[in-house]
Amino acid sequence: MLILMKPEATEADIAEVMGVIQSLGFAGHRIPGAQRIAIGITGNQGAIDPAHFVRVGGVAEAVAVSKPFKLVSREVKVEDTAITLQAAGGAAAQFGGGRFAVIAGPCAVENRDQLLITADAVKAGGATVLRGGAFKPRTSPYAFQGMKEEGLKLLAEARARTALPVVTEVVDTRDIELVAEYADMVQIGARNMQNFALLEAAGSLRKPVMLKRGLSATIQEFLMAAEYVVKNGNYQVLLCERGIRTFETMTRNTLDLGSIPLIKRLTHLPIIIDPSHGTGDWRSVPALARAAVAVGADGLMVEVHPDPAKALSDGPQSLTPPKFAEMMVEVRAVARAVGLEA
Amino acid sequence: MLILMKPEATEADIAEVMGVIQSLGFAGHRIPGAQRIAIGITGNQGAIDPAHFVRVGGVAEAVAVSKPFKLVSREVKVEDTAITLQAAGGAAAQFGGGRFAVIAGPCAVENRDQLLITADAVKAGGATVLRGGAFKPRTSPYAFQGMKEEGLKLLAEARARTALPVVTEVVDTRDIELVAEYADMVQIGARNMQNFALLEAAGSLRKPVMLKRGLSATIQEFLMAAEYVVKNGNYQVLLCERGIRTFETMTRNTLDLGSIPLIKRLTHLPIIIDPSHGTGDWRSVPALARAAVAVGADGLMVEVHPDPAKALSDGPQSLTPPKFAEMMVEVRAVARAVGLEA
Amino acid sequence: MLILMKPEATEADIAEVMGVIQSLGFAGHRIPGAQRIAIGITGNQGAIDPAHFVRVGGVAEAVAVSKPFKLVSREVKVEDTAITLQAAGGAAAQFGGGRFAVIAGPCAVENRDQLLITADAVKAGGATVLRGGAFKPRTSPYAFQGMKEEGLKLLAEARARTALPVVTEVVDTRDIELVAEYADMVQIGARNMQNFALLEAAGSLRKPVMLKRGLSATIQEFLMAAEYVVKNGNYQVLLCERGIRTFETMTRNTLDLGSIPLIKRLTHLPIIIDPSHGTGDWRSVPALARAAVAVGADGLMVEVHPDPAKALSDGPQSLTPPKFAEMMVEVRAVARAVGLEA
Amino acid sequence: MLILMKPEATEADIAEVMGVIQSLGFAGHRIPGAQRIAIGITGNQGAIDPAHFVRVGGVAEAVAVSKPFKLVSREVKVEDTAITLQAAGGAAAQFGGGRFAVIAGPCAVENRDQLLITADAVKAGGATVLRGGAFKPRTSPYAFQGMKEEGLKLLAEARARTALPVVTEVVDTRDIELVAEYADMVQIGARNMQNFALLEAAGSLRKPVMLKRGLSATIQEFLMAAEYVVKNGNYQVLLCERGIRTFETMTRNTLDLGSIPLIKRLTHLPIIIDPSHGTGDWRSVPALARAAVAVGADGLMVEVHPDPAKALSDGPQSLTPPKFAEMMVEVRAVARAVGLEA
Repeated sequence: MLILMKPEATEADIAEVMGVIQSLGFAGHRIPGAQRIAIGITGNQGAIDPAHFVRVGGVAEAVAVSKPFKLVSREVKVEDTAITLQAAGGAAAQFGGGRFAVIAGPCAVENRDQLLITADAVKAGGATVLRGGAFKPRTSPYAFQGMKEEGLKLLAEARARTALPVVTEVVDTRDIELVAEYADMVQIGARNMQNFALLEAAGSLRKPVMLKRGLSATIQEFLMAAEYVVKNGNYQVLLCERGIRTFETMTRNTLDLGSIPLIKRLTHLPIIIDPSHGTGDWRSVPALARAAVAVGADGLMVEVHPDPAKALSDGPQSLTPPKFAEMMVEVRAVARAVGLEA
Repeated sequence: MLILMKPEATEADIAEVMGVIQSLGFAGHRIPGAQRIAIGITGNQGAIDPAHFVRVGGVAEAVAVSKPFKLVSREVKVEDTAITLQAAGGAAAQFGGGRFAVIAGPCAVENRDQLLITADAVKAGGATVLRGGAFKPRTSPYAFQGMKEEGLKLLAEARARTALPVVTEVVDTRDIELVAEYADMVQIGARNMQNFALLEAAGSLRKPVMLKRGLSATIQEFLMAAEYVVKNGNYQVLLCERGIRTFETMTRNTLDLGSIPLIKRLTHLPIIIDPSHGTGDWRSVPALARAAVAVGADGLMVEVHPDPAKALSDGPQSLTPPKFAEMMVEVRAVARAVGLEA
Repeated sequence: MLILMKPEATEADIAEVMGVIQSLGFAGHRIPGAQRIAIGITGNQGAIDPAHFVRVGGVAEAVAVSKPFKLVSREVKVEDTAITLQAAGGAAAQFGGGRFAVIAGPCAVENRDQLLITADAVKAGGATVLRGGAFKPRTSPYAFQGMKEEGLKLLAEARARTALPVVTEVVDTRDIELVAEYADMVQIGARNMQNFALLEAAGSLRKPVMLKRGLSATIQEFLMAAEYVVKNGNYQVLLCERGIRTFETMTRNTLDLGSIPLIKRLTHLPIIIDPSHGTGDWRSVPALARAAVAVGADGLMVEVHPDPAKALSDGPQSLTPPKFAEMMVEVRAVARAVGLEA
Repeated sequence: MLILMKPEATEADIAEVMGVIQSLGFAGHRIPGAQRIAIGITGNQGAIDPAHFVRVGGVAEAVAVSKPFKLVSREVKVEDTAITLQAAGGAAAQFGGGRFAVIAGPCAVENRDQLLITADAVKAGGATVLRGGAFKPRTSPYAFQGMKEEGLKLLAEARARTALPVVTEVVDTRDIELVAEYADMVQIGARNMQNFALLEAAGSLRKPVMLKRGLSATIQEFLMAAEYVVKNGNYQVLLCERGIRTFETMTRNTLDLGSIPLIKRLTHLPIIIDPSHGTGDWRSVPALARAAVAVGADGLMVEVHPDPAKALSDGPQSLTPPKFAEMMVEVRAVARAVGLEA
């Protein structure tokens, strides 16, 4: 159930609605919009009688929400949610609301030189957010697991140097405070998309969360995972499509660009594309980056490494800095063609 | 094994190479290129000793071809194959070689009015090839199975009226001569991608063949299916990616745009995208059409119907003529941005 | 719509019902049962008013059929359909109706010796039907394509020698009369499961048809494919689950045993399991054969080759004759445990 | 790399090998076998020169281990690992080593009555381990999330009453000590199969861990996840196949029984089957339970609820107590047929 308030509704009206919701034993969520306030109701199993609300002052309408995801739904909030990141002294990067931003950097933070060289290079190429993994979820326990806190400190140094905001992954609830202290946006990776304890913890952060689609997550499960974060109070969720698992093995994953227009109809949250994981081959990354812009995504996340052959993870899918710069030229041309402001 | 001839090689040199191949019990296939002739060898199970060829006059190199597909491989023919269709009195539509063309029309030919109205509309919107099914493969034996030869005649009438070449599907070897008599390009659909008897019959046609990827066909199987056609002597094969089957059910299929740059590296054959089957929802078609151009495809195939709600098949994924015309404006803008000539 | 006749209904009653169906423009299908006749109605798009039938003499009930498959549905025919094969001088092999039979033989007929040795061996091991492919659908046009009519003649010789009925595959409508002349049961393979022209042709045969599930066919599509055969008048359809295509690559296919109890609830047709294609590894075949019996399948189809290392196709999944004999001992023990008569 | 010691090797020999491993910067893991000790080496990225070891006294052989999983591999340990659970005053339940055990109980602990009634019923029916979720991972944040610690206490009460050992799920590293305090075996669910922090924490427990295969996990990823637990020192890992995600939607998951013989060739760890999640329909559970025994699994996990229609989760796939008892009769008959001791 969604209560749409009139534009002229007062704080007292809103408080009255909240009181009715509480008296019914449910939870009310205030959802600010451009024109007016809406109030989402959760905690109910079945339908709620709209009669409870229609006589309260300031209420325009009480609307039943048909999808299992509620707070992330377009039914509840018609306007796009935009997410803005900005580091001290730097430019703002905006995802959604008609603007487009590019996250780039190494898969993993490997050492100071590798990170700073890459950070300088992606900034020069046109990226407005820096990525780099300090905690790495790896299929093998014998593979490089990341530099952990040391890596976070290097990311902070790279941010201070380049004025690029940073996004980095968290893999365990025990580390989330630490990661959030260093990161401008906290990433929850594909393998943790249904780590519900981690989602709930991310919902308590006061920083944006980037949520990657799980390898075999349906669109509905993906949006339900975002709902976990939003339900806990954090409305700043950036979705990321990074390819799903199918029978095809010649590409690392199957990038599901066909889902983007559908997802944009279903939710107000912004969504970006990761063509690096989506294809697993740097030679295919620029083409898919162009396609991502053309299909209507709100941004990109791309892996860049100064020496991919020596990368400790994901070398085959990492662009060199010159290839990244070339890609950005192509991406900007397509963005102009579809009327996006990069 | 591929024998690359020197640019100055004579017909006598070529005949000598062919003779050696025959004496080994294999088959030689002449593959003309811009600069020089190559000769593909098929029929061998394992490796052939290059020593058989390197001493023949005019031979530049004998190259082992590592992929199971041979004649369709980039290793065998470096230059793009382009496929051109043209109806009497009309403009040429070219797929590949840096040019882009759009096929549009109804899923099924339903009656004379429906077809002619749609043909006029897609021509007005900018399509250069007309599609329409006369033989329809349907999951249910109780569904409309197509107008068969009557439908083919209507397609011929629509071609005469609009000067658009036509593509239509064949579903059985017994009908292929009949379909080829009416069609400018013969389509083999996704469900018949591994109907090897039909592929072989298509290899004997003197008309281009459009081959759609099977719902669960790997990229390698897709190219091997094309190899069946080419091996039988028909080099005019246009590939079509139309979405694969995955666990996701909110979209009809999962359009595998990530495969396009890879397929273009593997084969010289042109490839187009079908965003109608790829998404199953007309609201997503324009976005995926833009993405298809951006990713580097050589064309599009789009379903258009004057009254989708009454379509006998695939109504939910059919564009109305005005929506198709809008889509074409967007597609042309992206094509210009990526340097394609539409 | 299904018309259930009373046990005492006369031929005149049935004729009257058929007449009503025809006058409505639909088709009636007579479905004999143990107790009484039922008449299935097809050709209608929507619901039919039961009032057309309830007043006709001998009609017990007019029942709406909820599934898209009709004639193959349990709603239409409650009793199991059993399929019996028998060669001159040999024992009957029965699939369904509480009995279990085993088909075995080589993937492909390669030569006379190979086939006769294998036929003798599988008979000795306990198989009651012989398999062997004469027309082989192969992913590569360069792979062995089968001995064709010569192979069919060898199968007939093997049948005469062993008194085992034979099943062999047809891949093209142009060959179906020829194949049916030699075979006791005609196989339609996984890649042709939606070759609707072939299904219709099989529906006109007077011999049983074994229909394999397509690599990416849903259960509903599988049953709709069987409906094509039955609708054309051939009620003798034996289903075969042979594994579906999934993301897993360590097994050749993913054998979907979990579908068997569901399929048995949905349809009256018998279903067997092919553990050879289902796993792709002879070492796994006996375990899956045991599981197939335990789960409630009506039979098995197993590949056996006297020298798997030299097989022209599917060697890695073929059992040797001694391994096949061992497997049969295990299979019989499980069959007894679940109350099946082998 | 695996170092196989001679049967007569002394503790001093072993210590010398361990010293060489440490001097190379790697870790040695002692793996006791029936006849002799083996020492697994981990921490190396590439191949290790066997020359380091072959001259040490007591070393029989230094074997390169080709699979990415090491400690869980059959190459490292030939004999089956068996896992035994036993509650005070109760009988031992053994998984593996030729014995078979059945875990049963409700999906979620809902209240005291529900749990105790079910515990009594599954014990009466022949289960030797009780299951019940206290922490529930749910797709929707609005669904019942489990009774948490209160549920653990009820499980302890049920164990005291029935003398059945209990298995229950942990979903977050912060709770693992608490869960392990109450549980006899700790479950890591399908959605957490690649929650590597949780796997590592489970590796530090002194209790057996049941690891469920992820919805889209390959067999190799499944074994690598087990490797995380074993590498951290906990060798008591019970694998559980519970169905994978495929294109089929008529069954909840696709139970991958075809993987069982392969997994048993690859690893010494025991594996059980969960036919409840594997099919999602109680009517299919008994058939798949029989198949699981026949295919060679080491046990079953089955959901039972006294009133499935009112279950707070997974009602449609839960057996009633009488149906569970019937199933056990069938399962025991098949177990006897394949020579298993239940």
